[in-house]
Amino acid sequence: MKEYMQQLGLKARAASAEMSRAEASTKNNALLAIADAIDQSVAALKAENQKDLQAGRDNGLDAAMLDRLELNDARIAGMSEGLRQIAALQDPVGEISDMVYRPSGIQIGKMRVPLGVIGIIYESRPNVTADAAGLCLKSGNATILRGGSEAIHSNKAVAQCIQQGLVKAGLPADAVQLVETTDRAAVGELITASETVDVIIPRGGKSLIERISSDATVPVIKHLDGICHVYIDAEADLNKASDIAFNSKTHRYGVCNAMETLLVNAQVAAQCLPELASRYAEKGVELRGCERTREIIECNTATDEDWDTEYLAAILSIKVVDDIGQAMAHINAHGSHHTDSIVTENYTLARRFLREVDSSSVMINASTRFADGFEYGLGAEIGISTDKLHARGPVGLEGLTSVKYVVLGDGQIRV
Amino acid sequence: MKEYMQQLGLKARAASAEMSRAEASTKNNALLAIADAIDQSVAALKAENQKDLQAGRDNGLDAAMLDRLELNDARIAGMSEGLRQIAALQDPVGEISDMVYRPSGIQIGKMRVPLGVIGIIYESRPNVTADAAGLCLKSGNATILRGGSEAIHSNKAVAQCIQQGLVKAGLPADAVQLVETTDRAAVGELITASETVDVIIPRGGKSLIERISSDATVPVIKHLDGICHVYIDAEADLNKASDIAFNSKTHRYGVCNAMETLLVNAQVAAQCLPELASRYAEKGVELRGCERTREIIECNTATDEDWDTEYLAAILSIKVVDDIGQAMAHINAHGSHHTDSIVTENYTLARRFLREVDSSSVMINASTRFADGFEYGLGAEIGISTDKLHARGPVGLEGLTSVKYVVLGDGQIRV
Repeated sequence: MKEYMQQLGLKARAASAEMSRAEASTKNNALLAIADAIDQSVAALKAENQKDLQAGRDNGLDAAMLDRLELNDARIAGMSEGLRQIAALQDPVGEISDMVYRPSGIQIGKMRVPLGVIGIIYESRPNVTADAAGLCLKSGNATILRGGSEAIHSNKAVAQCIQQGLVKAGLPADAVQLVETTDRAAVGELITASETVDVIIPRGGKSLIERISSDATVPVIKHLDGICHVYIDAEADLNKASDIAFNSKTHRYGVCNAMETLLVNAQVAAQCLPELASRYAEKGVELRGCERTREIIECNTATDEDWDTEYLAAILSIKVVDDIGQAMAHINAHGSHHTDSIVTENYTLARRFLREVDSSSVMINASTRFADGFEYGLGAEIGISTDKLHARGPVGLEGLTSVKYVVLGDGQIRV
Repeated sequence: MKEYMQQLGLKARAASAEMSRAEASTKNNALLAIADAIDQSVAALKAENQKDLQAGRDNGLDAAMLDRLELNDARIAGMSEGLRQIAALQDPVGEISDMVYRPSGIQIGKMRVPLGVIGIIYESRPNVTADAAGLCLKSGNATILRGGSEAIHSNKAVAQCIQQGLVKAGLPADAVQLVETTDRAAVGELITASETVDVIIPRGGKSLIERISSDATVPVIKHLDGICHVYIDAEADLNKASDIAFNSKTHRYGVCNAMETLLVNAQVAAQCLPELASRYAEKGVELRGCERTREIIECNTATDEDWDTEYLAAILSIKVVDDIGQAMAHINAHGSHHTDSIVTENYTLARRFLREVDSSSVMINASTRFADGFEYGLGAEIGISTDKLHARGPVGLEGLTSVKYVVLGDGQIRV
């Protein structure tokens, strides 16, 4: 196992040198060729996926797991469409910025470069194989993919399409490698291969990510939980407040940028909570309020645990606060530094919220659901980082790159 | 010990919230007040430093260690002058960039924010206490300093000046805390305190940094070694080549951006090596050449180990190569991805070197000695990162910050 993973790492390292030099047009040709290969392999992909589904049923996977595992026509079309979209994005590699002359006469700037070798560790969704490979390929990196063991046949079939496309475009097949063993020890090898792997990106549930972060010696770009807040200020436009609070919770439940706790200023709580409660009731959202909330609307009682919980479900906790200071203290203490929004017409408070809330996305008068690579204009995202180092918030192509300093001289020496 | 370090961490976390909101003028006042306190404490600083020097002599520290440990008038003046220079730098915190309107109507941009709590682990130089604290303070972070145990009295005395200055400017004294125990277990606690510490910056020798990197669970911004190259191309201007190769090696020996290996194109080796060899001989630089080098000049034989060695001394290895491809292959295989320079008048080769060499600084026709925060215009640096994630190359104030997305809306919701 150790030896197998080392071989994979060395091959990836060799391929990454070639990938870092590849022209944008070559990488785009590869992405389009992979998309074509996927479109032409629908039957084969579904056949291999059937083996995983059958094994999953035999092993008693629940319905939700089986659903995530399934590759149907729509999902296969989604994979190839996603790759074509990535091909259409601008190539970030090689971009030079901030070029200035220094008093010594040298010119100095920064050039965007690939990270090198990226290890992606993910759970049962086989379509991640194509998404993740596509983004890493476009950003000039080599990739090692480690999918869930329950999707091994599907992942191998997708990886075959990827390698066909790479070779067709004249890029090294080793630029995207799938770990073909389901032995769990492979993950341990991958996340400690500092010599050959530059960064690990885990995608999946919180427990997977916590386990990987604590054991990895390779740097990890990770997304933990999303406990997002909307704060309705005393000077909020209550129509905007109602729409934003409703949309942030109910647009989708199982996503990291959904609101989990609503904070309401005491001065407007009696005015806005009843109307909001009835909108939530219509949608079947369970409300859990603090004592002051329960004096205004009927709902369950929120416990201390609620403030620290990512429901990912049709449940919302509500707390009445006295002012923006209390709201921000709650957000910074109980939130997950993911996405938080204030609804207010007050310029000074808006400015203060923007500066003082320590989250990867801080919003004024907008739904937390906007925290997303597509909405932010990144084109696509490999995840939303809750880390502070390197990449924070939605991670697109740029988050998969680094920079190096470039210095242009004409014979300058230090004196 | 565990409890002591936890308390330190919690106090730092609390102080970091206040620091992140501090105005530039307040932070500058603190820096100037610390500088004044240092200037007014010369006698006390020297008296405390004497205790460390005496203990060092008693414990048999060598002359180089004792020299690094010493706080003389010039070094004390250097500390306060350094702090005044940091006060004069622009505050990076709060800067908003890349603000654009999206089709949904939201405006999105990035705001620069402090990292939070930074742990600095360093060896015997007590003046690092002031430098590191100053940079972290200016960038709005709270800092935990862990200096070498042999400098504990000196570090405590400097820390006292820092805390005086912080309090005088109305900032929390806990914004800069010194670990006041010399127990080695404190380092282990600090580098695994993920809850309260956001990043660790080790400063010191390679073995310290390797030990910390391998044991830390908190992210580390590190500088390992500097095996830097100059490649003299067939189309080099040989006058520039001679000056750059000479300056890169001899301007200073014990620094990470000094050249350790010179690569020379076979077409010009016979022309340029004899003159260079005599310049190096005059300076007393020992040359170790490959076989082809030794056919041109008299020198010692370079072994395989030489290509992977950071001498930090008046020693230079020299290799003759056939073309830029061989030169870059050598650099990428044996270098430390720190700083590498090509000397050439050929546009196409210069462009290729810039793109394909995977180092934190890549140069054309300039001495490797320019890889430095001051020379690059960063104002000051806390170190030179050889990592790829987050900060690469010289790390100044910006490297001590992160960004968050800011979203300005007018009631927008996702549809």
